[in-house]
Amino acid sequence: MAERKGRIFIVTGIPGVGKTTVLDASLEAARASGSDEVLLVNYGTVMFEEAKSKGLVENRDQMRNLPSEVQREVQRLAAEKIAGMAKNKIVIVDTHMLIKTPEGFLPGIPIWVAEALCPNLFILVEAFPEEIAGRRSRDAARNRDLESVKDIDLHQQLCRSAAIACAEITGSTVKIIMNHDGKAEEAAAETVKLFKAFKR
Amino acid sequence: MAERKGRIFIVTGIPGVGKTTVLDASLEAARASGSDEVLLVNYGTVMFEEAKSKGLVENRDQMRNLPSEVQREVQRLAAEKIAGMAKNKIVIVDTHMLIKTPEGFLPGIPIWVAEALCPNLFILVEAFPEEIAGRRSRDAARNRDLESVKDIDLHQQLCRSAAIACAEITGSTVKIIMNHDGKAEEAAAETVKLFKAFKR
Amino acid sequence: MAERKGRIFIVTGIPGVGKTTVLDASLEAARASGSDEVLLVNYGTVMFEEAKSKGLVENRDQMRNLPSEVQREVQRLAAEKIAGMAKNKIVIVDTHMLIKTPEGFLPGIPIWVAEALCPNLFILVEAFPEEIAGRRSRDAARNRDLESVKDIDLHQQLCRSAAIACAEITGSTVKIIMNHDGKAEEAAAETVKLFKAFKR
Repeated sequence: MAERKGRIFIVTGIPGVGKTTVLDASLEAARASGSDEVLLVNYGTVMFEEAKSKGLVENRDQMRNLPSEVQREVQRLAAEKIAGMAKNKIVIVDTHMLIKTPEGFLPGIPIWVAEALCPNLFILVEAFPEEIAGRRSRDAARNRDLESVKDIDLHQQLCRSAAIACAEITGSTVKIIMNHDGKAEEAAAETVKLFKAFKR
Repeated sequence: MAERKGRIFIVTGIPGVGKTTVLDASLEAARASGSDEVLLVNYGTVMFEEAKSKGLVENRDQMRNLPSEVQREVQRLAAEKIAGMAKNKIVIVDTHMLIKTPEGFLPGIPIWVAEALCPNLFILVEAFPEEIAGRRSRDAARNRDLESVKDIDLHQQLCRSAAIACAEITGSTVKIIMNHDGKAEEAAAETVKLFKAFKR
Repeated sequence: MAERKGRIFIVTGIPGVGKTTVLDASLEAARASGSDEVLLVNYGTVMFEEAKSKGLVENRDQMRNLPSEVQREVQRLAAEKIAGMAKNKIVIVDTHMLIKTPEGFLPGIPIWVAEALCPNLFILVEAFPEEIAGRRSRDAARNRDLESVKDIDLHQQLCRSAAIACAEITGSTVKIIMNHDGKAEEAAAETVKLFKAFKR
């Protein structure tokens, strides 16, 4: 049985859903209103720092060239490091449920990460596929491949399945937060409310 | 590899789907037709009895105030107790696949429960979301929050994912039983047929 | 953490999706173009051979009469045998994600098989439910029960959930390959491209 390490919230969302906007706004609100210290960590960044400190890479581009066994080990070490941070702080983990690669959907939170983190909650930030397609097409600077509305819908559907599989492993709850166009403040408010709902 | 304990059938369904009606009718039919002894247990009740016998609570309302680690341990003990009942009886477990809480969907059958029970079959009692919405709105006495048809559909969809994740862990089959308006007898008959299909 | 054994690709698809056609064409193309040795194994056949070599059965029909514990053990032994083949060859495993039985959907790749194989990739060969229904109705020779388009859609949806649950356990990617009417060559070409994408 996976064990809780403290208060850990995993926040995921597919590209273009506005996860960062929601996270920043909710973090600000959480810090403004609460006494508990809140820490926001980006899972990819912690992985890179672990790999760098072990002399495995010098820059982030080298991460994808690590042998898959090494990548998995670094992924596990990052999970343990983040779990350690939760001893005296609320930790919000910014990561991906499923990363869309040319070779298929890759789990961002495989079982060994889910177990090591054992979060209180998995949050799926979602929006209507049409909204996400619209945001991506306006977001030319980040040069994302334009996916069809149907592909975006599939990606979100599979992320739900992945979140439920993770929850089965850890016993955590799964919450979908809708981030509709022009409603990021509402999404952030709902997210902060969740952070407060879990006393431990 | 999870091990079979005997004949265990887990029956789940979201509020308003008519799970109890189907269970009562199928239990009656199973007992009338068969020689094997059939036992119906409510998972929540077994959990409460376990907690009470350990002096952790005095009434059911106190269950939700137990620390989450204690809740999980009680949940696991209940699973082992139910598995023990399956040595000489067919055990039908009335429980929830995913409980909808304000903090998100909570797995009713996390991995440690699924493994301890290792059932032959997970049954999802379902109905059209519109039927469930109709039943809930007529069922004023139980004072349920009225959810949209879309939310009901989501809840059922996620329960399917949870059932499949459980089945992956235990190797059990997953069966959807449709309980359409006015067709509880048919649903019960289909359920009884399933109980009989598993010889062990 | 499940460990990679070599290059293993699991290819699944529900009856009528044209999995065999895609597999045969992709295998031919892979062998024609590549230097690595490629092995195609049928999971059910390996299971039968394991059971036969242990004196448990004499013909395939007897497989379904084995006690479920024995079936599961044979299933696990077959997974280990296939994992062993991957030491010096690319192994493509032809199997089912969820087998539709009268008693419900049975996982073809439960957790102990997923962990023993720990494939690079789970491929779901899919088609529109209408296409699959059409192919099945024309394929009278194999005498398949005719399912509704809705049932076919459900089967494919649940297979996606099962694939995601497997991927959570192994960290493998999940890829959907569409095998539309008259487009088996395209599906095969896409499949071969995937085989080549994983260097190990």
